[in-house]
Amino acid sequence: MNAMRRITPVILSGGSGMRLWPLSRQDRPKQFLALSGECSLVQETALRVSDPADFAPPLVVAGEAQGPEIEAQLAAAGIPGARILLESAARNTAPAVALAAFAADADDLLLVLPSDHFIADAAAFRAHVAAARAAAEADWLVTFGMTPDRAETGYGYIAPGEEIGGGLRRVAEFVEKPDRATAEAWLASGSHLWNSGIFLFRAAAFLDALAAHAPGVHAALSHGDLASSPSLSIDVAVMEKHDRVAVRPAAFGWSDIGSWESLHAVLAKDAAGNALAGDVVALDTSGCLIRSDGPVVAAIGVSDLVIVATERAVLIVPRAESQRAQEAIAALLARDRPA
Amino acid sequence: MNAMRRITPVILSGGSGMRLWPLSRQDRPKQFLALSGECSLVQETALRVSDPADFAPPLVVAGEAQGPEIEAQLAAAGIPGARILLESAARNTAPAVALAAFAADADDLLLVLPSDHFIADAAAFRAHVAAARAAAEADWLVTFGMTPDRAETGYGYIAPGEEIGGGLRRVAEFVEKPDRATAEAWLASGSHLWNSGIFLFRAAAFLDALAAHAPGVHAALSHGDLASSPSLSIDVAVMEKHDRVAVRPAAFGWSDIGSWESLHAVLAKDAAGNALAGDVVALDTSGCLIRSDGPVVAAIGVSDLVIVATERAVLIVPRAESQRAQEAIAALLARDRPA
Repeated sequence: MNAMRRITPVILSGGSGMRLWPLSRQDRPKQFLALSGECSLVQETALRVSDPADFAPPLVVAGEAQGPEIEAQLAAAGIPGARILLESAARNTAPAVALAAFAADADDLLLVLPSDHFIADAAAFRAHVAAARAAAEADWLVTFGMTPDRAETGYGYIAPGEEIGGGLRRVAEFVEKPDRATAEAWLASGSHLWNSGIFLFRAAAFLDALAAHAPGVHAALSHGDLASSPSLSIDVAVMEKHDRVAVRPAAFGWSDIGSWESLHAVLAKDAAGNALAGDVVALDTSGCLIRSDGPVVAAIGVSDLVIVATERAVLIVPRAESQRAQEAIAALLARDRPA
Repeated sequence: MNAMRRITPVILSGGSGMRLWPLSRQDRPKQFLALSGECSLVQETALRVSDPADFAPPLVVAGEAQGPEIEAQLAAAGIPGARILLESAARNTAPAVALAAFAADADDLLLVLPSDHFIADAAAFRAHVAAARAAAEADWLVTFGMTPDRAETGYGYIAPGEEIGGGLRRVAEFVEKPDRATAEAWLASGSHLWNSGIFLFRAAAFLDALAAHAPGVHAALSHGDLASSPSLSIDVAVMEKHDRVAVRPAAFGWSDIGSWESLHAVLAKDAAGNALAGDVVALDTSGCLIRSDGPVVAAIGVSDLVIVATERAVLIVPRAESQRAQEAIAALLARDRPA
């Protein structure tokens, strides 16, 4: 039997964002947090593509400081055979993916997965990946474009062009984060998709495109020299420039969890619209995300707030303004305080 | 020179309320908390009447478990000569005051002071006390009635009757906590005063009234037997029944701090109406009371909330509903959790 080559997940764990402060911190980025259920986001990311019938063990690209934590979390989740590639320097996603692509076989199909995203419907996700396989084998660089369900201004968008078969369309344009009016117009017209940052391609196809469009990155990583590579995102380095880029329109309950608000959108909620986690008493409260990893939190008579408590810090902010957590971090850093 | 007998403060520290939960707890009642500045409420209460020219050392009536803490706090505040009378059982204010009155000389003027109240203008307070002295020496039981500045429904009220000279009026009636419409009518008419729970009387005058109106309390305490005394408030036992009860209308920034809302009303506030204490970052925030004795609290874009954090618990509640903190305590106790 001539079995199909299994897909190799490439899990990117370089991030050190603090957008879920105070739960995420510089020394505990978002992918290590359990935001729904018991598993951390990186564990869920790996488990989602762990069926050995379809997937090879993952390549995990991680910041050097994260190596031991990644290893421990994958072991705890029962992910065998993962190869962890440590980044000697933080150089954004294009060099990180190149590091993995050079470590893979040329014909390996690489499924690039940010380690800190949320996907509600793993089966639908895998079905979309399977459906994109033929295009990737035909050297398309495939991205997955999420069908918007709200006028989100925090995501980049993709304008799909002509159909190329198999439910995929050529990418007409990658578009930066829009203003609200534009996002609302796109939501109404259905003309644009969210750029999920999830990709499927043949390792050699990606590296060829990289050599053409970002030769500095390609040259550095061909010698395994991350530190000397330009710092570029995969979108800017390759996707926005290459002509053989396709998008698979999809909907599988995806979120990049870039703010508490976007986490609230995907979490299970009670009848009053509250997403509660940890040691929380919520009375006469609605539309809130309340989470404690430290002291008991008692919320009474409040609506549409994000309330997050750890042993070190407590954040209270209206849900719709939750990206403003960054302002608190800035204020603390201005006081020479750790955030 | 025939010096005037100095007034003896009687500081009542039997309370174990949790109305300022989570800062106040069963094992740390409100009077031991520093709510504005460095001193605790019981220290401020003692310091307010500590000028030896006018005041004798205080008699402090305290719950048995509070003895060591009271002693330490008075020592730290530099209050010499205090006598601490420990209550072998909690029996409300009438027996507690009787315990002090029996410990005093018959002719001592006793100034009964709850240990957990706030007074903004100590000099005005002392001037009102001095002005009430003559009536107390003439065996009036004098109470101090606060001129309302809002339609408060959390206080008992006093209806003053005819003038008896010296700026005092006979008490026509003590009235229980009113509903809002009644409180608003009284505020508009100026007909009623808040019952502060602060009293001035001769020890013997009080004990005589107690013997007449609450003989069970008098009999028990005449033997120093608190445990066998009925549990009665001084209002119910004596003040509401005696015919020689006077009120001095007064305004000295008084609050019983029966809720976070009433504490907010008397604390110093910034230009946006926030009263902040402890490790707090408040951005674009107004009308809030925010206090931390534990983790740093970051509040962004919120209004008119009470936010109080300790290492054990965090409370978030609209300021106008802050008495609902009790509901959180009840919910925690229902979970067999300490509050």
